[in-house]
Amino acid sequence: MHSANAAHRRDVPLPQAYRLLNHGPTVLVSAAHAGRANVMAAAWAMPLDFDPPKVTVVLDKSTFTRKLIEASGCFALSVPCRVLADATFAAGSLSGAARADKIGDCGLHTFPAQQIAVPLIEGCVAWLECRVIVEPHHQQAYDLFVAEVVAAQADERVFAGGRWRADAPPELRTLHHQSGGAFFVAGETVQAAKPRG
Amino acid sequence: MHSANAAHRRDVPLPQAYRLLNHGPTVLVSAAHAGRANVMAAAWAMPLDFDPPKVTVVLDKSTFTRKLIEASGCFALSVPCRVLADATFAAGSLSGAARADKIGDCGLHTFPAQQIAVPLIEGCVAWLECRVIVEPHHQQAYDLFVAEVVAAQADERVFAGGRWRADAPPELRTLHHQSGGAFFVAGETVQAAKPRG
Repeated sequence: MHSANAAHRRDVPLPQAYRLLNHGPTVLVSAAHAGRANVMAAAWAMPLDFDPPKVTVVLDKSTFTRKLIEASGCFALSVPCRVLADATFAAGSLSGAARADKIGDCGLHTFPAQQIAVPLIEGCVAWLECRVIVEPHHQQAYDLFVAEVVAAQADERVFAGGRWRADAPPELRTLHHQSGGAFFVAGETVQAAKPRG
Repeated sequence: MHSANAAHRRDVPLPQAYRLLNHGPTVLVSAAHAGRANVMAAAWAMPLDFDPPKVTVVLDKSTFTRKLIEASGCFALSVPCRVLADATFAAGSLSGAARADKIGDCGLHTFPAQQIAVPLIEGCVAWLECRVIVEPHHQQAYDLFVAEVVAAQADERVFAGGRWRADAPPELRTLHHQSGGAFFVAGETVQAAKPRG
């Protein structure tokens, strides 16, 4: 399950960061505070603005990851791929509150972020480092967190030159959670015709 | 481009409605008010709650569809599929403000919703009828609209028994916009292993 890809990570210019989430992948949300780190899966995450890039993600009040984010003001979104399907489902099913190392229990490994003190998930294909824009009503009423993206990276085998590669290897394609651990894998790319005026 | 599917539409129980968006498809947002109707494409839409189901969608202030939604308090999300890629890109590129019939100009046809006075888009594979929960700060600061889903339907060839069908025909698979009219088509389904406690 462990797929190290340090040699393939490339910085993504911030105005292109929204493209890492635009097609609706399920993400891994990681956070850390006071010596504890955790990860959860979230299908409910999406871009919210282009430049400066913002994202929004739903974080249930019961999650330990949310507590870490509320304490630290930061989180990371790592975009998992097909080889991480089991780990992603585990991250979405297990709770980290009572575990010494949920990240390891899920079979996941981490590496340091560039701008925030949050671990990023190895073997994923894209990473967004986020600082929370505190919105108490959103957070309380809808569990909805808004954040600015302060750094972004992607695996060049999958995303390069600002675009997802149609020739990405099958095992590195993004996951799109249906329910109960069933995921669509991103399939072929179709290019729509330019609309007539 | 026109793919009538009235015979295949089935009601989706409201507690399952989130599953129509959970995997992150690009949607068509339609709205109507005072004799005008319009449609736009949105990649930035997602579920926000299970039961009663809620959704959230980003609607730019420049869009005519947003004006109709602010006036009527209702919108519909129709989930387009591969055969509607060109029409979906057109709906995301053209403005309806100065058009007598943008829906027709995009090559799209409509049918009546069940609970709201908003046209649904024919040939799509799922439909959610939504009533806005007015949140002035969300709408102004982030262009983010929250709504309750009051009715849902899906094409039984693609979604049945509360699940997306792995054997759905290629032309009826959902679209996931990357940028510039390039879409991922939902690919194969992988079932993750149940995590060990």
